[in-house]
Amino acid sequence: MTERPGPVDPAAPTVLRPLPFGDTSITGGLWAERQRVNREVTIPMGATQLEAAGSFENFKAAAAGSHGEYHGPVYQDGEVYKWLEALAWERARADDPQLAAWQQEVTGLIRAAQDADGYLNTFEQVTGEPGDRFGDLPFNHEIFNVGAMTQAAIAQARTGHDDGLITTARRAVAQLGETFGPGRRDGVCGHPLIEMALTELYRLTGDPDALALAGYFTDARGHGILAAQHTGRFDGSTYYSDRIPVRETTVPEGHAVRAVYLAAGATDLAIETGDAELLTALRGQWQAMTDTKMYLTGGLGARWEGESFGDPFELPPDRAYAETCAAVASVQWAWRLLLATGEARYADLIERTLYNAVLPGVSLSGDRFFYVNPLQLRGDAPLAEDPRVVSNGRQPWFGTSCCPTNLMRTLASLTHYFTTSSADGLQIHQYAPMRVRAGAIDLDLATGYPWDGAVQLEVRASGDVPWTLALRIPAWATGAELTVNGQPAGERAEPGSYTSIRRSWRRGDVVTLTLPMATRLTPPHERIDAVRGCAAIERGPLVYCVEQTDQPPAALVDEIRIDKGPLTAVDQPGRLGGITAVNIPGRASAGGAAGALRATPYYAWANRGIGAMRVWIPRV
Amino acid sequence: MTERPGPVDPAAPTVLRPLPFGDTSITGGLWAERQRVNREVTIPMGATQLEAAGSFENFKAAAAGSHGEYHGPVYQDGEVYKWLEALAWERARADDPQLAAWQQEVTGLIRAAQDADGYLNTFEQVTGEPGDRFGDLPFNHEIFNVGAMTQAAIAQARTGHDDGLITTARRAVAQLGETFGPGRRDGVCGHPLIEMALTELYRLTGDPDALALAGYFTDARGHGILAAQHTGRFDGSTYYSDRIPVRETTVPEGHAVRAVYLAAGATDLAIETGDAELLTALRGQWQAMTDTKMYLTGGLGARWEGESFGDPFELPPDRAYAETCAAVASVQWAWRLLLATGEARYADLIERTLYNAVLPGVSLSGDRFFYVNPLQLRGDAPLAEDPRVVSNGRQPWFGTSCCPTNLMRTLASLTHYFTTSSADGLQIHQYAPMRVRAGAIDLDLATGYPWDGAVQLEVRASGDVPWTLALRIPAWATGAELTVNGQPAGERAEPGSYTSIRRSWRRGDVVTLTLPMATRLTPPHERIDAVRGCAAIERGPLVYCVEQTDQPPAALVDEIRIDKGPLTAVDQPGRLGGITAVNIPGRASAGGAAGALRATPYYAWANRGIGAMRVWIPRV
Repeated sequence: MTERPGPVDPAAPTVLRPLPFGDTSITGGLWAERQRVNREVTIPMGATQLEAAGSFENFKAAAAGSHGEYHGPVYQDGEVYKWLEALAWERARADDPQLAAWQQEVTGLIRAAQDADGYLNTFEQVTGEPGDRFGDLPFNHEIFNVGAMTQAAIAQARTGHDDGLITTARRAVAQLGETFGPGRRDGVCGHPLIEMALTELYRLTGDPDALALAGYFTDARGHGILAAQHTGRFDGSTYYSDRIPVRETTVPEGHAVRAVYLAAGATDLAIETGDAELLTALRGQWQAMTDTKMYLTGGLGARWEGESFGDPFELPPDRAYAETCAAVASVQWAWRLLLATGEARYADLIERTLYNAVLPGVSLSGDRFFYVNPLQLRGDAPLAEDPRVVSNGRQPWFGTSCCPTNLMRTLASLTHYFTTSSADGLQIHQYAPMRVRAGAIDLDLATGYPWDGAVQLEVRASGDVPWTLALRIPAWATGAELTVNGQPAGERAEPGSYTSIRRSWRRGDVVTLTLPMATRLTPPHERIDAVRGCAAIERGPLVYCVEQTDQPPAALVDEIRIDKGPLTAVDQPGRLGGITAVNIPGRASAGGAAGALRATPYYAWANRGIGAMRVWIPRV
Repeated sequence: MTERPGPVDPAAPTVLRPLPFGDTSITGGLWAERQRVNREVTIPMGATQLEAAGSFENFKAAAAGSHGEYHGPVYQDGEVYKWLEALAWERARADDPQLAAWQQEVTGLIRAAQDADGYLNTFEQVTGEPGDRFGDLPFNHEIFNVGAMTQAAIAQARTGHDDGLITTARRAVAQLGETFGPGRRDGVCGHPLIEMALTELYRLTGDPDALALAGYFTDARGHGILAAQHTGRFDGSTYYSDRIPVRETTVPEGHAVRAVYLAAGATDLAIETGDAELLTALRGQWQAMTDTKMYLTGGLGARWEGESFGDPFELPPDRAYAETCAAVASVQWAWRLLLATGEARYADLIERTLYNAVLPGVSLSGDRFFYVNPLQLRGDAPLAEDPRVVSNGRQPWFGTSCCPTNLMRTLASLTHYFTTSSADGLQIHQYAPMRVRAGAIDLDLATGYPWDGAVQLEVRASGDVPWTLALRIPAWATGAELTVNGQPAGERAEPGSYTSIRRSWRRGDVVTLTLPMATRLTPPHERIDAVRGCAAIERGPLVYCVEQTDQPPAALVDEIRIDKGPLTAVDQPGRLGGITAVNIPGRASAGGAAGALRATPYYAWANRGIGAMRVWIPRV
């Protein structure tokens, strides 16, 4: 175990080990700016919005034992917990009196709201009758909420700013353990999440009951428990990830966030129990998901109906759901598989997803959000009443605020996913200007990534023993080159793998990695009917899109066609926080006039008003 | 007004007039077989299924004044009414003791269930508290149900088999009139339908209050009434056709069935009030809908979410909703526009919709149904819990049984939509072997349509005065030819118009119309992203599809490509009730082996088990 670890810290052996939280810090560039905005704008906005939604009133009412008015959906407690988790990681990056005050105050409210027997769920406490507890397992999120609380409590405990939430969480978990499991009541939550939290609690505390409960909640699914308890709110076991046992699933289905949280939790379980068979099943599911049910952006969930995965290759760009939370869940799952296996494919997907499926969920200003992240918006799409509908533009908040709070905790803990160590050395999975201080090692990484593929690492300090530096070569980076102190070095770098240098490092050693940032036209898979005859533009790790505002007036995004090329990258330091745009030769319509079109990174779309946009563009 | 008219009988002048119900009878061919199966299988199955669903128990419980168990969704009464309407039209075609007994018994149950003040809604009567009436206008369907009852009552009254339902309906309508309107309570139903029924009641009875109430319910929409009364069951005024006033709508949006029922009712209103401005608005809406929001099949509704229209040109074949009821509603709307204008485009759409969007909703055996009618099913689509999901195959019934009952009443009254008269003569809109006896005129029409484009009309009797026979030339029928007694005749027949012959007809006169039944490859509209690079196969009025079961083993429907042609029609009298299939040269995949593929009419799909199917096929 690491000291002051981040969100995931396996107790059992894994191929790669997370670094202690804080060993890695982003020092500049795109992600530093996103973290700054998250801290200065988004997290404070969370306090305001959660207050306005009545979230804190719910805890006060539960503490007072008053019966009556409850505010928000049944999972409102969970939104508070995700925001609290963000606070904790943010305080570990740099403490601040306002963050500390919020944490202390809200943690106090939560602690006061807990029932004497450990039960804590303000919806049931404020509106339920005695005996109602766990009466609607498919929908009431009681177990889910305890999971989110546990994750926040673990963050507090690991970052050294525990205001007592871990005690509250352990009591709530104990109450669940007394209620559910073999010889007790059969039951699982309609919304997975607690599986990850319980295993992580075991990792923090060593409590075998927490791990056993994670195992129970994981393997009890897929045997009809929820169908038997179904109350009619949503139809079907598929939605609740309860149609097929986790071990027998071949490809994720149903509600995307639920399915992927469950898979991530099952991966934790496989790691801690040394269950190679379960890990193999999960790796197969992940491969099938990424091969057949994932958007180019890394977005997951093709259907609005049930916020769910579609059939294999059902990937419409316009009606993509691609919930921001599903992207967060996907990063969490891929991270656990990366730790377990050390395979670059998982780090590749983390990169694709962070840039192109997580980041689009928040505006550059940090105060507007997308819940749903389609790859196309038509110019004539009308305004709609549902705030999830993208034609309404980015929204300041949602009645269901999982996406903003999930973004907050992900950005606050982002460096957790960038680096690892092993017995052999250090691995760099993601590139950004950053400082890595791990034990005796101190590295400084300078880069203009994701705009520029040149990455320079300078060794500031190193121990006396030789160790291996491993650098990920992204799957798109054909022709990457590596030098050490100016001399070609490393294994031949195959895209989609790691290149390694083992040596006795000395202060002042400089490693340069050059990732070719060729702009590329990506064809879709033959089986994806919805984008036949189209191509997408990518450059480095970024998926691009065309927005109406950037095109000549005669070129309507709904009607444009693109030529094969040449594609030209154009640096625009003053636009959209600093981007590299791409110029593409094209036509205003199938038979229309030729002209230059302009693509910009998808993550930055809809920051200049809302209008027609597309990632997949019909070819001439 | 005609004697014993069918479902629609305008009181105000219209360009075309419906013939009395029974003047036209189908004597053979595809539609005769569908009507036989509807009578012998589907309608009796309705009795069984409605009984099993507890529908009749609801009326008994309401009659007994008992408070407690209610069966089915809130619109369950409405399903009984639609089935009763089918019974009435069926009895008018040929009476039968079983049909009569069912009608008498169920009508008796309904009459007994009515409250003293005319209110009748078994859901509220059985489960509601005093004062609950009309407490959930967005969702409870109380007004909708009265509309469906009124339509059934009008059918009983017009077919001469009135068991008293018209009195019950008039009392229920009077109770609505006392409740809603100017100076009374503001309110409209979340599900339009009653607008058509009220105007038709005015046509039957001359009661101006019914017409006024239709006007109120039509024009009260779009002003926020429902939003103010919203109870949270479904979000938004768009879903309830309440976002924009009917007169200001430019293209239908929201829940497709609701929107199109409303448009059909508004068209009735425009006819009866002589409101040319409203009629112009509705014609524009219809044109925009058919241009931008309609599937090739005539299917309406691109989204599962809210069973709704998508944005313009959002027409995914795989996730098409295309509810069978929306197709029924579309026939009803187009029919009213046809009567009002006499324009062939409306009759063209009725034909396209009947064959390709209504008929696919029922199996050839008459006892299995589709609620949703997509234009593509992938071979690897899993079974699902929702019975609407097409990969489960055709279903014997649905918890929401609107589609089967709507099919029953449409097939029972089908001839209503085939012919009209005018001051000038007679119009034939749809072709089938049939007998038309209108006043002094007696025509016999022989044809192998829709397989063979040769139509032969023989005059068996005619009055002494000259009159004009008008025959529709479908929009696809380029090169149609007409003869009278073997001599070329008629105006030059432009596709998408009527060709007319005015003369003094004599017994034995023979008119032949030859519609070229060329098989054609139809390209999609450039703006429909979801089927770019594909083509569809059509022949005459029929849209074709490829089903996996008809292809060579190596040709997976998910991967096939088609060549430009030649397409070859192949008569298969023994298959699928007798069809003409189409052979197409193609490939097993984009780079795969060449071979012959086979297409069959879309309406007949999924009658040999369920498997991969597509209407739009990628081109080589």
